[in-house]
Amino acid sequence: MSDALIIFDTTLRDGEQSPGASMTRDEKLRIARQLERLRVDVIEAGFAASSNGDFEAVQAIANAIKDSTVCSLSRANDRDISRAAEALAGASRSRIHTFIATSALHMEKKLRMTPEQVLEQARLSVRFARNLCGDIEFSPEDGYRSDPDFLCRVLEAVIAEGATTINVPDTVGYAVPELYGNFIRTLRERVPNSDKAVWSVHCHNDLGMAVANSLAGVKIGGARQVECTINGLGERAGNCSLEEIVMAVKTRKDYFGLQVNVDTQHIVAASRMVSQTTGFVVQPNKAVVGANAFAHASGIHQDGVLKARDTYEIMRAEDVGWSANKIVLGKLSGRNAFKQRLQDLGVAMDSETELNAAFARFKELADRKSEIFDEDILALVSEEDAAAHHEQYGFVSLAQHSETGERPHAVVVFTVAGKEVRGESDGNGPVDASLKAIESHVRSGAEMVLYSVNAISGSTESQGEVTVRLQNAGRVVNGVGADPDIVVASAKAYLSALNKLQSKAERVAAQG
Amino acid sequence: MSDALIIFDTTLRDGEQSPGASMTRDEKLRIARQLERLRVDVIEAGFAASSNGDFEAVQAIANAIKDSTVCSLSRANDRDISRAAEALAGASRSRIHTFIATSALHMEKKLRMTPEQVLEQARLSVRFARNLCGDIEFSPEDGYRSDPDFLCRVLEAVIAEGATTINVPDTVGYAVPELYGNFIRTLRERVPNSDKAVWSVHCHNDLGMAVANSLAGVKIGGARQVECTINGLGERAGNCSLEEIVMAVKTRKDYFGLQVNVDTQHIVAASRMVSQTTGFVVQPNKAVVGANAFAHASGIHQDGVLKARDTYEIMRAEDVGWSANKIVLGKLSGRNAFKQRLQDLGVAMDSETELNAAFARFKELADRKSEIFDEDILALVSEEDAAAHHEQYGFVSLAQHSETGERPHAVVVFTVAGKEVRGESDGNGPVDASLKAIESHVRSGAEMVLYSVNAISGSTESQGEVTVRLQNAGRVVNGVGADPDIVVASAKAYLSALNKLQSKAERVAAQG
Repeated sequence: MSDALIIFDTTLRDGEQSPGASMTRDEKLRIARQLERLRVDVIEAGFAASSNGDFEAVQAIANAIKDSTVCSLSRANDRDISRAAEALAGASRSRIHTFIATSALHMEKKLRMTPEQVLEQARLSVRFARNLCGDIEFSPEDGYRSDPDFLCRVLEAVIAEGATTINVPDTVGYAVPELYGNFIRTLRERVPNSDKAVWSVHCHNDLGMAVANSLAGVKIGGARQVECTINGLGERAGNCSLEEIVMAVKTRKDYFGLQVNVDTQHIVAASRMVSQTTGFVVQPNKAVVGANAFAHASGIHQDGVLKARDTYEIMRAEDVGWSANKIVLGKLSGRNAFKQRLQDLGVAMDSETELNAAFARFKELADRKSEIFDEDILALVSEEDAAAHHEQYGFVSLAQHSETGERPHAVVVFTVAGKEVRGESDGNGPVDASLKAIESHVRSGAEMVLYSVNAISGSTESQGEVTVRLQNAGRVVNGVGADPDIVVASAKAYLSALNKLQSKAERVAAQG
Repeated sequence: MSDALIIFDTTLRDGEQSPGASMTRDEKLRIARQLERLRVDVIEAGFAASSNGDFEAVQAIANAIKDSTVCSLSRANDRDISRAAEALAGASRSRIHTFIATSALHMEKKLRMTPEQVLEQARLSVRFARNLCGDIEFSPEDGYRSDPDFLCRVLEAVIAEGATTINVPDTVGYAVPELYGNFIRTLRERVPNSDKAVWSVHCHNDLGMAVANSLAGVKIGGARQVECTINGLGERAGNCSLEEIVMAVKTRKDYFGLQVNVDTQHIVAASRMVSQTTGFVVQPNKAVVGANAFAHASGIHQDGVLKARDTYEIMRAEDVGWSANKIVLGKLSGRNAFKQRLQDLGVAMDSETELNAAFARFKELADRKSEIFDEDILALVSEEDAAAHHEQYGFVSLAQHSETGERPHAVVVFTVAGKEVRGESDGNGPVDASLKAIESHVRSGAEMVLYSVNAISGSTESQGEVTVRLQNAGRVVNGVGADPDIVVASAKAYLSALNKLQSKAERVAAQG
């Protein structure tokens, strides 16, 4: 069996399904470029048939990415599959990933189909897809809770129709390593021609075992593809973490004996980009990418580390890109240095005008802030994106005051469809007053379900990055705003969230 | 073999070793009460010999806790063990946990001892401890990377001396489930009289597999104690998560066949308390206790969940206490309701004066904020604690102003050893200006390494809870402050961090 382990990243598809993690086309494109830089083998870019927005995102990624295979999810029907093929037309290498549920529970309660109907639909869909694309992945949704006899019949049928990858999801995160590994092995042993396909694992983290389950699927089961996401982003407790899988396979090469292509030095940058884009924080004690993952506090440990690094370290922080968080630019940096840094960060500017606008904002920021980090640049470019796309709401200016014993008060000037308006309000605090000042005009009626702030790169001298999550009529969106003034950052984040609520991204969403 | 799985919580010892997670005696006591409410079997309360502060914390917890065994860590020497026994004197049930490193790397590089010296010291220490306490746990630090022959000799010796629990740490988080499970099984098979002790697992999450490794130690290895922490708090990528272990064993009872005593309904409250006390955020996609852990976003999933809950749910949110986050008190709540809620939250007030002061602050808050949550009450009580302990710095009042185009400016009035001072500064934003205003007097020279804000319970109408992490002369402390005004919360957090930096908590720290 091959010793190459295929890393299939689904940050942009399953990760994006997390409540509040939806991304714009440009945000997805930027992350896809970072995944390509990571040398991920397959990028699942989205679910083309779910919405026009996601179709465009998959298409943009397919056209831009050269080194990774680009994949779109689709339900097991001709319309979804055609849309996926259409979106992927410009890709160097493309894959269609089609799925249908096979567990008794899902077939009966969700699909309301008999097993024979499901089998037939799986067969026909793969046949249809195979005529459009040479690289077809099939997933039996809730596969791990499916009847093995029935599942074997389905998988045999789709391999016969030409499916090249068979992925067995633990959709609800119910598996434990030993059982999941044995399940994959049993399927591979029982399904005729199982060696005609690459077997893949897709695990969720509801019981905290997504990584161990995936690796058991590989080690015991013989799978050679792992589906995972940056930061373990994904619905509920999320998916298997890319960074943990990759570092486990590399650190325990003695046990796994497998090769992965991923260039680990870009892991921390990818983690930050995904966290910054979605507003999903990474907890300090997150493996590999948490702020404390390589920190040693206790006296005994520090002493040990000083005496011999490997007493307490099994990986090196540099290997996953921790040292890369250097001050990159300052007040005196020129346009070329700025442009180069954008390229290094995988940000492509559509035109010179766009670059010039971003550079002007960069100079303005550098006047207020002596040290400019990669995160600052990404935040700044996100705002440019928003401005360039003529969004409904735009920030102009803010004045606020708070004083113990008085009620905080704010005035916010912002644009609505290009026209300046002025909102004014008091509130429980200056942030509350500023957002109420905006609402006094907009009257969105949205409910705020999350408000959080992280200082970009440490201290309060740096920019504050605010995430605002709004919920309205069943939709959940995140807005992110950055500014050295936390109140201004909050107003920007709120306007950004309102813009996202405004865009009518109705969509059908997918499996977990 | 028994089907009871002992849950040993080390949030207050190994968890507290995380850089920035150190807690005061009162904070530790409050968390210990919550752990008792959770019905954790063993609470490792600290490392008594490491500092006077930790000695007092262990002692206070030993005196207060009735339903759980209280444990103190100690190195394998008579002085440490005596201090542990002394601190535990008032406990209903006590345990001394002594450790020494047994891996070649640690013995040579860190301890600079020969294996025979280590063996002898382990033996003598357990003998000494056994005369002070009937319940002795022994840990060979870095046990998983130790030579099995040597390790068997050490473990045989300490069991012969009366050790009642043998804990095998994967100190550096290097294990994978299959190997770790087999390692424990081999030790149990080879060590004479292994059945005289309960075997225990202690795993770190550096490769994302702490939970799966622990459970393999139980299932394959036959261990009957798991060492874990709330939120997986702990050095580097943290320890095995209590909530994940407990819910995995309960949800997969078909596979594990084990009983745990933990009352899962208190899990979410415990998670919040630990997060709020340490300032360590829990990421939304954290299993069991993350904000999204039970959220279903995608259309297909929502549809599935509506048709039949178990299509996508393997646990119920209510079972881990998610529904408990109700509005608890308001403006009209009386002193008795407030007192009752404090008791429910496990907060003991030392005197009527203290209770009255807290109630006055509660009424003041309720005037500004219509809905009071448990988190608000805990934040308020933390501030009372600080005030009651006559801390060096105390917040009095703040005025600040920011306006686009001008430099933000703040005036902060605070007390230094009881005397009011007034600081004034501008800054990059109102928060930066406020902290600089404080620094203009204090001149701590501390470096800010983290600044983060979470709105307590959702919107910006609620209180903002700010965490400030300062580093100075090798010490790292977190200060937490809460206020409906985020700038005021920031100033309070900064003063609280300065207080912690000031308290001379020099300490020896312990194993991971």
